[in-house]
Amino acid sequence: MDTVERWGLFEVSAEGASSGNPFVERHIQATFEGAHERVTVEGFYDGDGVYRARFMPSYEGEYRYVLDGDYGGGRREGRFTVTPPRAGNHGPVRVAGTWHFAYADGTPYHSIGTTCYVWELQSDARIAETLQSLRESAFNKLRFCVFPKHYDYNLSEPRSYPYEGTPMDSSVLTRENFGEYTFKTEGNHFDYTRFNPAHFRHVERCIGELQKLGIEADLILLHPYDRWGFCSMTKEQDDLYFRYAVARFAAYRNVWWSLANEYDLFPTKDLTDWERLGRLLVERDPYGHLRSIHNCIAFYDHTRPWITHCSIQRQDLYKTAELVNEWRERFRKPVVLDEIAYEGNIQHGWGNLSPQEMTRRFWEAACRGGYPGHGETYLDEGDNPALWWSHGCKLRGESWKRFRLLSDILKQTPGPGLAPYDRCGWDEVCAVPENEPFQPVKSYYLYYYSFMRPSFREFYFDDTTPFEVRVIDTWEMTVEDRGVFSGRFRVELPGKEYMAIQIRRAD
Amino acid sequence: MDTVERWGLFEVSAEGASSGNPFVERHIQATFEGAHERVTVEGFYDGDGVYRARFMPSYEGEYRYVLDGDYGGGRREGRFTVTPPRAGNHGPVRVAGTWHFAYADGTPYHSIGTTCYVWELQSDARIAETLQSLRESAFNKLRFCVFPKHYDYNLSEPRSYPYEGTPMDSSVLTRENFGEYTFKTEGNHFDYTRFNPAHFRHVERCIGELQKLGIEADLILLHPYDRWGFCSMTKEQDDLYFRYAVARFAAYRNVWWSLANEYDLFPTKDLTDWERLGRLLVERDPYGHLRSIHNCIAFYDHTRPWITHCSIQRQDLYKTAELVNEWRERFRKPVVLDEIAYEGNIQHGWGNLSPQEMTRRFWEAACRGGYPGHGETYLDEGDNPALWWSHGCKLRGESWKRFRLLSDILKQTPGPGLAPYDRCGWDEVCAVPENEPFQPVKSYYLYYYSFMRPSFREFYFDDTTPFEVRVIDTWEMTVEDRGVFSGRFRVELPGKEYMAIQIRRAD
Repeated sequence: MDTVERWGLFEVSAEGASSGNPFVERHIQATFEGAHERVTVEGFYDGDGVYRARFMPSYEGEYRYVLDGDYGGGRREGRFTVTPPRAGNHGPVRVAGTWHFAYADGTPYHSIGTTCYVWELQSDARIAETLQSLRESAFNKLRFCVFPKHYDYNLSEPRSYPYEGTPMDSSVLTRENFGEYTFKTEGNHFDYTRFNPAHFRHVERCIGELQKLGIEADLILLHPYDRWGFCSMTKEQDDLYFRYAVARFAAYRNVWWSLANEYDLFPTKDLTDWERLGRLLVERDPYGHLRSIHNCIAFYDHTRPWITHCSIQRQDLYKTAELVNEWRERFRKPVVLDEIAYEGNIQHGWGNLSPQEMTRRFWEAACRGGYPGHGETYLDEGDNPALWWSHGCKLRGESWKRFRLLSDILKQTPGPGLAPYDRCGWDEVCAVPENEPFQPVKSYYLYYYSFMRPSFREFYFDDTTPFEVRVIDTWEMTVEDRGVFSGRFRVELPGKEYMAIQIRRAD
Repeated sequence: MDTVERWGLFEVSAEGASSGNPFVERHIQATFEGAHERVTVEGFYDGDGVYRARFMPSYEGEYRYVLDGDYGGGRREGRFTVTPPRAGNHGPVRVAGTWHFAYADGTPYHSIGTTCYVWELQSDARIAETLQSLRESAFNKLRFCVFPKHYDYNLSEPRSYPYEGTPMDSSVLTRENFGEYTFKTEGNHFDYTRFNPAHFRHVERCIGELQKLGIEADLILLHPYDRWGFCSMTKEQDDLYFRYAVARFAAYRNVWWSLANEYDLFPTKDLTDWERLGRLLVERDPYGHLRSIHNCIAFYDHTRPWITHCSIQRQDLYKTAELVNEWRERFRKPVVLDEIAYEGNIQHGWGNLSPQEMTRRFWEAACRGGYPGHGETYLDEGDNPALWWSHGCKLRGESWKRFRLLSDILKQTPGPGLAPYDRCGWDEVCAVPENEPFQPVKSYYLYYYSFMRPSFREFYFDDTTPFEVRVIDTWEMTVEDRGVFSGRFRVELPGKEYMAIQIRRAD
């Protein structure tokens, strides 16, 4: 009998009709049933007369399924066994402790994200290079688009299109004129009701590769950097696409749904569209994968019930991660800073942070109970430039090397994650475990001094509790044990920027 | 006949009564009259039976004076000639162009301030060292207190006290307990109605030394870092002190009045006190020297008519100079950032900025049409520590060296000063001349990129106007001529932080 691991992807397929437009005219669904769940999913047409339905089981044990519909292949039934998850498979990520995440098996998930908008639409060689870069990094979430991208440094053709048809002639594009072609559909001949299954199969392979690396795939379903009409389809076409995306991708445990990048830049969509698409995901995705929507200027109302976590682009040139406390209070959901500007040196103001500043924003975000996201935009002026932010390939910066240490420190947090400590000084950032009762001291404190350079700091929690003290240089990536202290104690610091002090109860 | 230069200090003195308390019981006033002004001032008792009255003439030519009062020495008359000002004497500083300053002779004054709270109450050797440091710097304003200071790193005795009497025993003070003695008066035996003229004469000598260096003396009349009762005197005692200060100091052309440092920390004063003292200065100071009041947390209402300019301590750990635009709009007065934290490495969060960050705050403030202030707090743990912030002595940091370049650039501004440019990009700071009509381009643009690191920027003002372009590395202190450009042009940058571009009409 067929087997699949818990939270693995089980797929059934069948031959059916291929005439007409099967994407619109044919339907297939499947019901999967075990002792603890019964799930009905919509299947999808995968081209060449093949239909598929996919399922991610949440429990171990025996399952059976029934496949049916007007797809032209009749009813099918079968059985399979769900085995325990293999090492490294912790299930999909869920919200935990209001402001944090955990895998379905309870393991805390501390998001350390990065963005490569269309890494998967590059050449095989580039994709392999990106995967190697990710393997060497501490990133455990990658944001990227299902559709190709049209923007500065992103003018060449993608490896494939999501729809049948032919694109406009891109040889007319230059850095100077590309803006005139944004949101234009002239010259394109796409049928927005006929998907290109090869495009989606390729995206799936990439999701699968990320899964092997333990990286969540934060799929951006729509974005406004477009010259092919994909960002200005009709409501019916959008719905068709979202259903197709759910049918194909939802059974991948590492998928997150990002409805849009910079939702507020779409010229032909309004809030009713996003609300409809959000509801569609809630209704169609049987696994409740994480759902968010990302802004350019104006935040979406992240309190909307279909939104699982805030996906935030910074709104201020200077203050970014520093606002996490405020956003936590306002939205009462995990605060994921999916765009806090990029390390790099391009001309755009959002794309030329120093690695020190990017690393600082990461620690600020983390020590305020939020989750930072990285990106890189180092100038590459060639015909087919490779900037990590869009293309992936090589990490050329310095901040990413510092995130392994942050990730290691975050894993030492007792409980689901860090909360900002409301009793710390005005001139320090301090995190404590989320939801931990005051006993009368906390079990754990993580102080961060950002760009400040104190030569020492003095502490007093109570008269007797012993605390282990470690001094962390977040930039130089050193961790120094300073021993056990109690009562009033002083911690010497090197008078440098980017220092942190970790203080743990030692009794 | 006696002569004095225009805006110089002319003093007349007379012997009088010394019994009782002449500071309270005796009065002396003088009227000075020339062709264009007639000024009556209050004189003051300078001890040892000597009374003085001082005058700063605003015009050249022949003057006469009459000295009189119940001081015990009778009426005196005399004549003197006011000569043209000597080189370097531009008169007192006034508000100009709503948000800026100019000397009385019309020369623009671009404030580049620093703070050494009690530099003048140190030893002669230290005072000489401070003056030498100032001579080597670009500072043209110094904030300091008339009264001694009691605070961390400021526990030793001052060289003199402003009042007759004896202080508490300071040998009991430690870094740990000094807070318990703040605002306390026990153990002190001062008569708050009997000034110590030697103390004031010494302060005057220091004001005079600053004047020789072309430095404005921003006199802090009251401050809350006190263990001697000077910050909690009665209303009558405060008024007596303010009148005495005006009588002694107002004729120094380089004096500014800062009513208080951190006015909101005084336990025994409320707004009616500050308003009364502000009014007293307006009424008593015949020259209308600049008047301000400095906050800890809550801003004073800088729209009050007696306030000539905003004296601001930053209210946010992260954003400081960046808020100048907002404050300019809100108060419509010059915005002087008298405290934007200090370069240094002490334990306090306000006192351990890197020199890069301090320099960055200076350029941010200047390019937003404000005036930044410096301070330094490098750790010095000895019995009698010397930190520039309080004690003066040596400048040990790196930011001060960069202000000569900023000062030179500011002097190139057409008109009274810089205004934020409202048509620049969201990701840049740009200054243009204040109040310059749009013609259709400005005559001058100063772009600043702060911590951003663009590798190039593109400009377009109009098709034909030629512009001279210079690239400024504000940290490395280099200025590079890039030639003349017109139409659409691109300026290459090194992809480093802290760069500026100066663009001037070349036709």
